[in-house]
Amino acid sequence: AGTMLDKAKKMIAAAEAKAEAIGVPMVITVVDEGGNLVAQHRMDGALLASIAISRDKAYTSVALKMTTETAAKLAQPGEMLYGLNTTDGSRLVVFGGGLPIVYNGRIIGAIGVSGGSIEQDVSVAEAGLAAW
Amino acid sequence: AGTMLDKAKKMIAAAEAKAEAIGVPMVITVVDEGGNLVAQHRMDGALLASIAISRDKAYTSVALKMTTETAAKLAQPGEMLYGLNTTDGSRLVVFGGGLPIVYNGRIIGAIGVSGGSIEQDVSVAEAGLAAW
Amino acid sequence: AGTMLDKAKKMIAAAEAKAEAIGVPMVITVVDEGGNLVAQHRMDGALLASIAISRDKAYTSVALKMTTETAAKLAQPGEMLYGLNTTDGSRLVVFGGGLPIVYNGRIIGAIGVSGGSIEQDVSVAEAGLAAW
Amino acid sequence: AGTMLDKAKKMIAAAEAKAEAIGVPMVITVVDEGGNLVAQHRMDGALLASIAISRDKAYTSVALKMTTETAAKLAQPGEMLYGLNTTDGSRLVVFGGGLPIVYNGRIIGAIGVSGGSIEQDVSVAEAGLAAW
Repeated sequence: AGTMLDKAKKMIAAAEAKAEAIGVPMVITVVDEGGNLVAQHRMDGALLASIAISRDKAYTSVALKMTTETAAKLAQPGEMLYGLNTTDGSRLVVFGGGLPIVYNGRIIGAIGVSGGSIEQDVSVAEAGLAAW
Repeated sequence: AGTMLDKAKKMIAAAEAKAEAIGVPMVITVVDEGGNLVAQHRMDGALLASIAISRDKAYTSVALKMTTETAAKLAQPGEMLYGLNTTDGSRLVVFGGGLPIVYNGRIIGAIGVSGGSIEQDVSVAEAGLAAW
Repeated sequence: AGTMLDKAKKMIAAAEAKAEAIGVPMVITVVDEGGNLVAQHRMDGALLASIAISRDKAYTSVALKMTTETAAKLAQPGEMLYGLNTTDGSRLVVFGGGLPIVYNGRIIGAIGVSGGSIEQDVSVAEAGLAAW
Repeated sequence: AGTMLDKAKKMIAAAEAKAEAIGVPMVITVVDEGGNLVAQHRMDGALLASIAISRDKAYTSVALKMTTETAAKLAQPGEMLYGLNTTDGSRLVVFGGGLPIVYNGRIIGAIGVSGGSIEQDVSVAEAGLAAW
């Protein structure tokens, strides 16, 4: 139960806790099924670029129905979707940190994290997702 | 004490409570001294357009060092800054709901609220500001 | 019953029939609850500008939860939301032709029509809405 | 005989039938000789990113007078048109799914399909083209 914003707050809180444990400030975004922002937090000291990147990682995960890590594999030079990142207003991020939120077998939103290495971003996003 | 994000969370929580009391879902954004987003929450049912508008109301209040209500007066046809809203990447919002955060006589950020009438937006922003 | 696309096709067909009866070619767009396009048809001879305008009229009606005729009243110089049309990426259209689709008391999408006078656009949009 | 919109509807209907047979929801766009949209349908469940991508695949096929599969070959790193996808407002899509419509030896428009794998997109576009 609870609103989409309530759930987003829980997810972002869990993600922030993980980022603090790692020691890397992050920007965390949650979007809804239509790709529209629900909530975004920028931890003190997080990279400014991560504001747009975390938001677009979340958007990408909903708009392509895949993690941005998967999009990364498909979008490399020579691969099937090379050039993906310049489509759709250049909103599609093709490196990891975006995860769809799956509920009852349907993608109902996504979480996007940016601020550290891809491995760190993904682990923080996973911590957020686990709090859904 | 506390980080900018801690303060932003307090402000947004107070703004959300006021919006719930009014009965109008809102989008609330806090930006820092550089005009960069610190936190944004979209309450369930809030207008989709309010995502960009609340963010840009906050940006405007920092970028012009004034409330967006004041910007509104200056930007009307025939007034001193007519045309203001199409400058700076069209990010400047010229209707009320954006308030600078003043600390020790300096503007250190801003809060922007969108989702209701201007009067409602401003009262919610004031509630948020009071929680600084 | 039927998918959102099925319903959009019915609405657009009814709108096209009305436009043909009026004798003015139109562009008709239907968007969903998240403001994302479901279907768009441009009748032969319709204005090129109407491609973007009808799409943005539909977006505006969802994003502001009002007809674009109402937005027009609010956005005039000296009125409460003067400057509205340059916010949200300049996607908000402030003249008539966009109508929300209301189902069970909730806005679940919108139809936008462009190509004639505002009166003509609105009558074609209403014909489309009636076919929901 | 028939208008451009009539023909576009036939093409899109054939493409939708193919997409249903494959079991993958798609977004299908037809543009005219000037690269301007004639019609676009988004099937229920199709990727949100496919709205822009299918439209731009169609535009690309007219604007470069080639399939987007051909553009893909030319645009890879080290190849003749590397960097193509960031020109022309980043509208040029460099992976398959866009096909020109050729009539009497002239390109009079194009169809663009997005939503599945490139192989699936192309087969759906070909089904649409066959209905011209």
